[in-house]
Amino acid sequence: MNGGIVGIRESDGSTAVGVQSADGRSVARLCGVEEFWADPRGWLATEPAAPPVDARTVELVPPVLPGARVICIGLNYLKHVAEGSYADAGVPEHPTLFARWPASLSVGGVGVPVPANEPGLDWEGEVAAWVGETLVDVTPNEALAGVVGYSTFNDLTSRVAQKLTSQWILGKNGDKSGPLGPMVPAAEVGDLRDGLKVETRVNGEVVQSGSTDEMVYTVGDTLALISQTLTLRPGDLLATGTPSGVGYSRNPPWLLQPGDTVEVEVERLGILTTPVVANDVRHAGVGA
Amino acid sequence: MNGGIVGIRESDGSTAVGVQSADGRSVARLCGVEEFWADPRGWLATEPAAPPVDARTVELVPPVLPGARVICIGLNYLKHVAEGSYADAGVPEHPTLFARWPASLSVGGVGVPVPANEPGLDWEGEVAAWVGETLVDVTPNEALAGVVGYSTFNDLTSRVAQKLTSQWILGKNGDKSGPLGPMVPAAEVGDLRDGLKVETRVNGEVVQSGSTDEMVYTVGDTLALISQTLTLRPGDLLATGTPSGVGYSRNPPWLLQPGDTVEVEVERLGILTTPVVANDVRHAGVGA
Repeated sequence: MNGGIVGIRESDGSTAVGVQSADGRSVARLCGVEEFWADPRGWLATEPAAPPVDARTVELVPPVLPGARVICIGLNYLKHVAEGSYADAGVPEHPTLFARWPASLSVGGVGVPVPANEPGLDWEGEVAAWVGETLVDVTPNEALAGVVGYSTFNDLTSRVAQKLTSQWILGKNGDKSGPLGPMVPAAEVGDLRDGLKVETRVNGEVVQSGSTDEMVYTVGDTLALISQTLTLRPGDLLATGTPSGVGYSRNPPWLLQPGDTVEVEVERLGILTTPVVANDVRHAGVGA
Repeated sequence: MNGGIVGIRESDGSTAVGVQSADGRSVARLCGVEEFWADPRGWLATEPAAPPVDARTVELVPPVLPGARVICIGLNYLKHVAEGSYADAGVPEHPTLFARWPASLSVGGVGVPVPANEPGLDWEGEVAAWVGETLVDVTPNEALAGVVGYSTFNDLTSRVAQKLTSQWILGKNGDKSGPLGPMVPAAEVGDLRDGLKVETRVNGEVVQSGSTDEMVYTVGDTLALISQTLTLRPGDLLATGTPSGVGYSRNPPWLLQPGDTVEVEVERLGILTTPVVANDVRHAGVGA
């Protein structure tokens, strides 16, 4: 068992895919990101031909295709439904899906800016599932069998922007606001319905503690539903929603400020650590 | 004046950008799509070095970066607000933004499938604006000055999927469901506030007839708002919303069926013609 699949920024700006060592200190290049997603199972079974290099000498990025869809479930844990703005509407009959563009994704260790017009960022620790096959009008079992891996994910949210109107996507696509952990192959993770612990900590304090067996909508059911409208492709991502304990619904509200550190830890997937920084990094040209 | 900027599928699967002749019969390759969006104004001022070729010998695609954001305004014409599900809520104070992934975009002439679980597709003729500069925390005037071109757009919608939950994006990202016309440079289009006629026809019958001067939220105001949360990049797209006259709110509802043809005509931007086809093309592997 290694430390999972990561993306590496190449000198020409393109993305390669590599395998991280279990301690995260070294990375071995496997192939280009388009190559990887053309045959993810084949590459997962392949030893890197390149020697490992010190992880500090490369820029890690998400191993994501620029044209991937990042589909997110908004309300998937009962206690999170109950704590939020939609509590009075009860549990929706279908998964509430919203969109991230891959341009909003990032990796652990990268500072996420608080936009100037936000009082802070909110945390949403969760699990993301990576689609490994083309899925059109599939059953839930077929959909689940098409998942090749999972990552920790923090769906960091600009709540003011999210709640400006009925649609959430502006507040869900802030610069660098979607840090993703390395992809761990599905075979090493097992079934989310067995219950993986999901914990979020702010400056070391536990703020969310849930288990993936609390999900209302399973990965298979949700991907099957999506596949009836749009054809899922290898490299697409499903963010499965966050447990209760987010910051905006607390009394008083608690939002992340520059200088804070937020960690998402998911059993079998590792720890994703994110520093929060000020808006001025967006003006330094490193924001997106 | 030519026929606008189009995308061309290259033999290796990548996208090039070309200039279409005014009659649409020939296309001259200009550069790769990444090159184009690294300096769109420079390329718009450049004559193609390659000779024009018969447009029937190339596959046209949108001149869009795979990692672009396609940000859409949901309710931007007063009479469309009044005809839809959100009529009772009145005119929102801010533009209602939803997301398309570039994977849902297409071009004129390409068949758009009706998913098996939809009673038809709805039309939404509109204008899309192309961002040509990096925009962070800009004013509305700065944002508008950063727009390099406009295209006709048909935001073809799977209404059942759109209305399953509070969030619309599933029904807004069906396979091939976002046909885009060629990009016409902003300098040739002028200001949308001057009023460009937007007309949609189904099998020749006029179903939408509006003018861009009816927009509640201008392109500049909307892009400025977005830039406060996320950094806009060259190649990002803003779809500016549709006038009244969509199909689902009619009595009885009128939705597009396989065999129908829908046209969107926008003054100065041309006519975008889309045939509607059956779901089985999704299973033939050409759906997305």
